[in-house]
Amino acid sequence: MRFLILGGDSRNIMLAQCLAHAGHNVQMSGLGNDSENQTPIIVKIKEAINSYDYIVGPLPFTIDGENLHMPLSKDTVKLNDLIDVFTGNKVLIAGKIPVNFTEKLIENDIAVYDYLDRDEMSILNSIPTAEGAIQIAMEELPITIHGVNALVLGYGKTGKTLAGKLHALGANTYVCARKSVDFALCEVNNLYSTDYKKVDSIIQNMDVIFNTVPAIVLDSTRLSHVRRDCLIIDLASKPGGCDFDYAKENGIKIIHALSLPGKVAPITAANILYKVIEHIIDERS
Amino acid sequence: MRFLILGGDSRNIMLAQCLAHAGHNVQMSGLGNDSENQTPIIVKIKEAINSYDYIVGPLPFTIDGENLHMPLSKDTVKLNDLIDVFTGNKVLIAGKIPVNFTEKLIENDIAVYDYLDRDEMSILNSIPTAEGAIQIAMEELPITIHGVNALVLGYGKTGKTLAGKLHALGANTYVCARKSVDFALCEVNNLYSTDYKKVDSIIQNMDVIFNTVPAIVLDSTRLSHVRRDCLIIDLASKPGGCDFDYAKENGIKIIHALSLPGKVAPITAANILYKVIEHIIDERS
Amino acid sequence: MRFLILGGDSRNIMLAQCLAHAGHNVQMSGLGNDSENQTPIIVKIKEAINSYDYIVGPLPFTIDGENLHMPLSKDTVKLNDLIDVFTGNKVLIAGKIPVNFTEKLIENDIAVYDYLDRDEMSILNSIPTAEGAIQIAMEELPITIHGVNALVLGYGKTGKTLAGKLHALGANTYVCARKSVDFALCEVNNLYSTDYKKVDSIIQNMDVIFNTVPAIVLDSTRLSHVRRDCLIIDLASKPGGCDFDYAKENGIKIIHALSLPGKVAPITAANILYKVIEHIIDERS
Amino acid sequence: MRFLILGGDSRNIMLAQCLAHAGHNVQMSGLGNDSENQTPIIVKIKEAINSYDYIVGPLPFTIDGENLHMPLSKDTVKLNDLIDVFTGNKVLIAGKIPVNFTEKLIENDIAVYDYLDRDEMSILNSIPTAEGAIQIAMEELPITIHGVNALVLGYGKTGKTLAGKLHALGANTYVCARKSVDFALCEVNNLYSTDYKKVDSIIQNMDVIFNTVPAIVLDSTRLSHVRRDCLIIDLASKPGGCDFDYAKENGIKIIHALSLPGKVAPITAANILYKVIEHIIDERS
Repeated sequence: MRFLILGGDSRNIMLAQCLAHAGHNVQMSGLGNDSENQTPIIVKIKEAINSYDYIVGPLPFTIDGENLHMPLSKDTVKLNDLIDVFTGNKVLIAGKIPVNFTEKLIENDIAVYDYLDRDEMSILNSIPTAEGAIQIAMEELPITIHGVNALVLGYGKTGKTLAGKLHALGANTYVCARKSVDFALCEVNNLYSTDYKKVDSIIQNMDVIFNTVPAIVLDSTRLSHVRRDCLIIDLASKPGGCDFDYAKENGIKIIHALSLPGKVAPITAANILYKVIEHIIDERS
Repeated sequence: MRFLILGGDSRNIMLAQCLAHAGHNVQMSGLGNDSENQTPIIVKIKEAINSYDYIVGPLPFTIDGENLHMPLSKDTVKLNDLIDVFTGNKVLIAGKIPVNFTEKLIENDIAVYDYLDRDEMSILNSIPTAEGAIQIAMEELPITIHGVNALVLGYGKTGKTLAGKLHALGANTYVCARKSVDFALCEVNNLYSTDYKKVDSIIQNMDVIFNTVPAIVLDSTRLSHVRRDCLIIDLASKPGGCDFDYAKENGIKIIHALSLPGKVAPITAANILYKVIEHIIDERS
Repeated sequence: MRFLILGGDSRNIMLAQCLAHAGHNVQMSGLGNDSENQTPIIVKIKEAINSYDYIVGPLPFTIDGENLHMPLSKDTVKLNDLIDVFTGNKVLIAGKIPVNFTEKLIENDIAVYDYLDRDEMSILNSIPTAEGAIQIAMEELPITIHGVNALVLGYGKTGKTLAGKLHALGANTYVCARKSVDFALCEVNNLYSTDYKKVDSIIQNMDVIFNTVPAIVLDSTRLSHVRRDCLIIDLASKPGGCDFDYAKENGIKIIHALSLPGKVAPITAANILYKVIEHIIDERS
Repeated sequence: MRFLILGGDSRNIMLAQCLAHAGHNVQMSGLGNDSENQTPIIVKIKEAINSYDYIVGPLPFTIDGENLHMPLSKDTVKLNDLIDVFTGNKVLIAGKIPVNFTEKLIENDIAVYDYLDRDEMSILNSIPTAEGAIQIAMEELPITIHGVNALVLGYGKTGKTLAGKLHALGANTYVCARKSVDFALCEVNNLYSTDYKKVDSIIQNMDVIFNTVPAIVLDSTRLSHVRRDCLIIDLASKPGGCDFDYAKENGIKIIHALSLPGKVAPITAANILYKVIEHIIDERS
């Protein structure tokens, strides 16, 4: 396959290497590799576009809603200009692509895949997220994960992987969930489980608490049960799942850890993009 | 809570013990414990019904569509007669309840819960099913599970639990699935995965194959790749997922193993019903 | 390498297949394959002996102390006659070889290896032994191994492997040991541990007890704490580690399970002999 | 029991807390808590000694061979002076106690226990050591431990625990060992194993290598097979097991990680001392 990697951060450079390593024909643009003072990227892309089957854009696609996210390049590419460029039997793969942009491309017969629509992407990302969370716990705690009392709030994709790894490392792992299917899955996976009513009674025994729920589950009431030497690692995307003010006033340490895959394992993060692209290729064949 | 356990097989007797053990008030009827030559069960139930909050029926609720499934009793109870009996603020919990029967009860303000609608039930049942399948493999194979090449077809509830236990026992565990999320989950769970196109190339290396898919995935073509000393255990409900005729003609051993929980671990099977009932009580409180 | 497989049971036939499969030159004698009414085996061996580097004998080498253990053959071979046959730069590998026989061979410059002197053999055999014990527990218990309270008496080679597999299958696994190093190893391996003083207080909670200690650890006092529905599997070689009379009188079920590898996984058992032989070859090179 | 904690670093302060928490009567001396400008410690100890059953000293007992290791105190205590103080039916527990000092105490009827003679101590310490090593790998590698190719050199106490945890985290874990029993144990524990002859052929595939062998196993020849992006973590005590000069010249990153328990998990490290002391008390009762 012939790939044009267009914009994005260093993850896209590593992704280009993965694709090339797998035998694909790969070209990069807007990644700081275009020689300066010359033809604008958009023109070059226009000239080159017919040589590629797949165009791989950044994640996120745009920050300001107008320009392609292209932090490693001095050049800029307007989304509006791209619409005319993307023609023919092409496939675009990128992340968080604006809806109206996607619609226009589909009108132009472009097949569009958004990473964020791919459940397997968040499942695979749960691996570096869980490891990153465990790494932080190892760094911060004066005790080993082995034998620690650990509570995982939420049993979605990240909660499942994290609880599994904590258990594998010998932590006494408790999961707090809502649904009866989750309690059943915890039993299958040899994890202690509790619900949000009963969790308060065990919270004071915890040495570390990981939150994966994007809602204020660690409110002031629940935080009031937390021991002062307990570490809280909040993995929920902004604004997180804790009453940070209450925690600060009461000397409870919370680390709000975001975007862990790119931080703790950038090559793995790029490799996950690669795997998703391979799946897409497989599905199209 | 006050429970009337009504009909069903020995599982319901054990379930009654679980409920009593947990401190509930439990009465059994239609389980061979009613003294003979006396008032018909239906009359006794009618008299007693107001003393109970929960009526727990059999799984399946009926075999012939007309009578309650009550194999341990010499008496019979017609579903039609039951409808008039079930009145007031009662809850009925049973399995595979006929739709029209459920509808009539709901009209009578009875809350109806069917085990088969409870996903946590099939998740919990996947534990004895997986163990039963492994027990059969241990009994049949002249080699240990440890180090065996094992293929699990399908990665639903049973496939997940089974593959996890095989891996835990040291089997080289391969999962054949269709969806990209399943491949991602296999990666999280350290399992080799393949799809239905590529599985044929590894099938000849397998020592044991477990099917969990309710469709003919092991057709004659695929079976033609299976080694003669490979054991196949089909866990899919009737008619199963194999071309049994082809297998027989070609000396391939297939064991069609059904209803394993009740067979290999009847007390666990009853205990699972108990857990589901506890969940229902929790949800109603 | 050129191997002469001499006597023994069906395990030696499977061993011959393993060796041949690995590319070695293999001949069998005294395994029921010698044509009848002809030259006695001992004469044939004498003629053939120079063609082989390794002679692989039975395990055990002899039952009566006079003749080679050769249950599959109608012929007999006296140990005394073998001494003269084994000459030159040969290697003998077998199990439980009588000491005086070994001494005479060594005088004749024969290198002698006894399986029973090989610790790796008992470690490898602990795998089928543990699986066999678990298989019996699965067959006998009306509950799953998953979630069972299991006690392993002794933390030697078999105890370690068995406890590890029980834990992996989701059993609440307790180990009873004597030495502080064993308590430490249990902690490393996430197992509950107790000593022989404290074990009596937990014994009544156990659903299954596995004994690996070759001494009467389950005496009448300790058995008096065992629940009637608890299953005991005694893996200790004769006479075992239980007061069987007391158990019988009191309705406690004990299964004395011996020689499990050959029974539950004969090909694996043969393969273990093969691996030990490969190690010996490696060490000699 | 009544304990005098005498000298040592912050681990001994935390140990005192563990012992007090367990209900023992605990006094500290030489840990910076003695008020200044007053009676010398040695005098106070002399006066107090009869009130204690156990004296717990530092690990190591002495750095210079003359004075007790007491880095948190401004005072000094000469070993020679201690000999006269230790009288009566006392027990001394400490680490790396000089042989001649131990002999003199034994003459005085003091029971002496050295941590370093306790195998369970090094087994328990293998847990924080393994976690610390994994933490470093997580921090240094741009990929996750999950899916990494990891080689552990040596399969002693640390090697066993480390390889087990790497496997549990989803690493492709290879162990390099010498003895056939170790290969057998690796098989039991589902680990790939190799010996020092064959390891060179896989070394180039490794992403991370952990050395636990106190000998130069990673010499220049072996290092020449290591990839430039491979991380080496040397856990062997000084001088370590690598040709550090060769590594430096050739751009291979080696981290020589020593005394990890105290660094990454000081409370766990103190707790391990506590557990050893509990074992000693148990053995003496």
